[in-house]
Amino acid sequence: MTSLQNVNPRVRRIRVSPHTGLQSLAEHITQEIAQGVQKPFKEVIDVSSGDPHKAGMKPISFVRQVLAVCLHPELLMNKTLPLEVRLRAQRLLEVCDGESVGSYTNSSGLPHVKQSIAEFIMRRDVGVPSYAKDIFISAGSQRALVLIVKLLASGQGETWTGVLTPMPCPYTLPTLLDEAGVTLVPYQLMEEQGWAVDLDELHRALKTAQGRCSPKAIYISNPGNPTGHVQDWKSIEEVIQFAAAERLLLLVDEVYQDSVYGKGRDFISYKRVLSEMGKEYSETVELVSLHSISSALMGECGLRAGYMELLNMDPEVMHLVDTMLCTDISTPVTGQLALDLMVNPPKPGDSSYDTYTQEIVFTRTTLSQNAQRAQEFLNDLPGMSSQPAMGGIYLFPRLDVPSKFLEQAKILEVEADVLYCQMLLEEEGVFLGAGSQYGETAGNHHLRLCILVPPDTLEQVLPRLASFHLRLVDTNLHPDKSAGMREIL
Amino acid sequence: MTSLQNVNPRVRRIRVSPHTGLQSLAEHITQEIAQGVQKPFKEVIDVSSGDPHKAGMKPISFVRQVLAVCLHPELLMNKTLPLEVRLRAQRLLEVCDGESVGSYTNSSGLPHVKQSIAEFIMRRDVGVPSYAKDIFISAGSQRALVLIVKLLASGQGETWTGVLTPMPCPYTLPTLLDEAGVTLVPYQLMEEQGWAVDLDELHRALKTAQGRCSPKAIYISNPGNPTGHVQDWKSIEEVIQFAAAERLLLLVDEVYQDSVYGKGRDFISYKRVLSEMGKEYSETVELVSLHSISSALMGECGLRAGYMELLNMDPEVMHLVDTMLCTDISTPVTGQLALDLMVNPPKPGDSSYDTYTQEIVFTRTTLSQNAQRAQEFLNDLPGMSSQPAMGGIYLFPRLDVPSKFLEQAKILEVEADVLYCQMLLEEEGVFLGAGSQYGETAGNHHLRLCILVPPDTLEQVLPRLASFHLRLVDTNLHPDKSAGMREIL
Repeated sequence: MTSLQNVNPRVRRIRVSPHTGLQSLAEHITQEIAQGVQKPFKEVIDVSSGDPHKAGMKPISFVRQVLAVCLHPELLMNKTLPLEVRLRAQRLLEVCDGESVGSYTNSSGLPHVKQSIAEFIMRRDVGVPSYAKDIFISAGSQRALVLIVKLLASGQGETWTGVLTPMPCPYTLPTLLDEAGVTLVPYQLMEEQGWAVDLDELHRALKTAQGRCSPKAIYISNPGNPTGHVQDWKSIEEVIQFAAAERLLLLVDEVYQDSVYGKGRDFISYKRVLSEMGKEYSETVELVSLHSISSALMGECGLRAGYMELLNMDPEVMHLVDTMLCTDISTPVTGQLALDLMVNPPKPGDSSYDTYTQEIVFTRTTLSQNAQRAQEFLNDLPGMSSQPAMGGIYLFPRLDVPSKFLEQAKILEVEADVLYCQMLLEEEGVFLGAGSQYGETAGNHHLRLCILVPPDTLEQVLPRLASFHLRLVDTNLHPDKSAGMREIL
Repeated sequence: MTSLQNVNPRVRRIRVSPHTGLQSLAEHITQEIAQGVQKPFKEVIDVSSGDPHKAGMKPISFVRQVLAVCLHPELLMNKTLPLEVRLRAQRLLEVCDGESVGSYTNSSGLPHVKQSIAEFIMRRDVGVPSYAKDIFISAGSQRALVLIVKLLASGQGETWTGVLTPMPCPYTLPTLLDEAGVTLVPYQLMEEQGWAVDLDELHRALKTAQGRCSPKAIYISNPGNPTGHVQDWKSIEEVIQFAAAERLLLLVDEVYQDSVYGKGRDFISYKRVLSEMGKEYSETVELVSLHSISSALMGECGLRAGYMELLNMDPEVMHLVDTMLCTDISTPVTGQLALDLMVNPPKPGDSSYDTYTQEIVFTRTTLSQNAQRAQEFLNDLPGMSSQPAMGGIYLFPRLDVPSKFLEQAKILEVEADVLYCQMLLEEEGVFLGAGSQYGETAGNHHLRLCILVPPDTLEQVLPRLASFHLRLVDTNLHPDKSAGMREIL
């Protein structure tokens, strides 16, 4: 009998994120409501993670119309659909074997889509060349990341692979590193500087690895998940110089590149900066850049597709990446086609252009206005402070809770931010991410709030959060008032 | 710089299947034709692997109609689509968060789809209970298999995990075992008994592992890929008894369960046989059963979804399976909905029922007639003999080539069957699978022929194959005639 004792020890050691526990609680409460249990709220609102359509954001019509025709090609004759939609679907069907989205593709993706991606990258980076052969499509950026990390896992003892990892980081990252068996080497992001990357801190972090493991890569999330920070040219240049000096591969998660709204900030890709740093850098520093259809503006999480562009990698290693992708057999074809539509959207003059543009502008405006609204709101609460987000889809406010509450959390053997989120869920039906699941941040507590939600939803979340928060602060300063709370604690 | 020398040694050791080389050759020839190079044929016909839509088989209309509506819900109002299609799409959208296929799902799949699958299994197994909690949806059966194999990988030296693996086996399996780092322990299938599983051979194989590794699972493909064998009740019972006695987990690939056409043969699931073997078996033997939407009748390879049912597994280990699936974040939702449609198709009386039934019957008839036609044709060729297929989508004929040809292959340092396939591709534009990529079969050479193709395609393949084969046999017996062949060799 296979028991926990005799399964793969590396698999057994995979850390379960505290998010899983909160998620179960959220599901439990939702079920209770469905069964008629009385709650002070009608439904749980999940603003803990980025799942735009679940939150009520709408898909891009053009994308869905084209995919519907690709799935059911009889719709090519359906004149209620724009001609351009049908022409595009026809073109995409032609690049699928047997003109069906039901056929396998090359393991690294459809050549036509890889070419579209390379052209998109060249336009984005103002002419820096990009080649289809360097693009690898996979079932989401996470799969690509797993693959690269697995590739890097080697050595023994002191030479065992480590990956420099920001704190805070996307909550799936520690699990992913665990599963590949590589060592997480944490570096702190600078909260007071809007969660910027700090060079001294990178050097400090590197030193902590000495004797423990050998860092072979540095992971960066830009625009930052969960921080909302967007790096400027100088900061990127510094990180590249650091990576070059320390011979680290740059693993750059750029999935929120289409969602930068900070004043005076634009998205700048690592590749573009690298291309202007002279041959000693541009022809040597290994760079993996990730993008995905799940992220911000399109939000097609369920279709599962992303890509990575590899730069300055050994051709033999790239060949191995291709071989590794064979295990996945094929990336979902509807996802691959959605990728093509993401990187090659309707152009001015196209009949779908106006609608497409309106939808994109609406989403970007929502994101930007929500970011500002939520940040101001949170900063007005006592014991809560949020750095402004410049991009991405999250705020990561700091929580300064009364010491009484911290003691209670200690007694219950749970992180204070997790306890906060549990109680917020129970009392107000609002589901926020608990900061500790994104890694340690110098002993402070944080929350993650997804702001890619309809403004109405945010207007429901904020007062419920405030009401809970003020109660908590008040009760913990004046414990006699805590009748309701004692039940939970 | 990351070079091949310093990447993960396990990844570096992954065997590249000879299929990759043949595939490149096929692509190269296709490109040459597109560039106007004159060839004795107009196009390459790929019958090497199972990719039904690529080969020209049609998707099931009902599946595609429902999925199109799910992607573009405005089509719910489109009266050219059957009411039932729209109702079903509405129902499926309701089980997606935010009523969008763009939302994430639970890592092990949509609860509604898991419930549909459990009900399908109960109907299939004439009432043996099945529970949604035991069903894990993943992006294809291969992903599920990777996960289980990875889970089992443990121990050191003699106690290191081995997996009993049939020869021949699906060609992706050795790569998959390599990647998980477990040891492949081969057992031969009995060609002369139509590729049956032989109990003595299983015991022999187990002995070969002694001192080398510790077999913890046995992999079975039933109906067989690439053999076309379908096990009967007694054979399944024997394998279960063997697994029980040797404490092996049963990893049963049952993806071709809907394509059994051998006279007097029905598909019998391992689960059903197990359920009737008494509690000492039915409550102890660990069973993993795989199924997929890619396989036979639906052929939706590009949508990427499959499931596994786990029986008699430790609940803690099942919990770990769930955690491991989190790395994939979510199975493609269009694929999950296609799974629901596969296991819960239109019923008698439904408006889509007749079309659906016609399409399924057409595919099954094609498969059965192609199997018979191809087997008879191949057996008429000198030096070629094929066991009859009873199910699945392949024939695996044996190739007895003249000794001169074997010598030539030896000089060229290539397996004779690979050389055969290369030449067949070059001379006739027909792409068959080379037997050696499916594992060693007692020194014999084989070919894999996919028979899930339109009958017209088969009628093009067979004469071209015969013409090449007869030329080869003739030339190698009378070497003077081999002018054309010398160029290639």
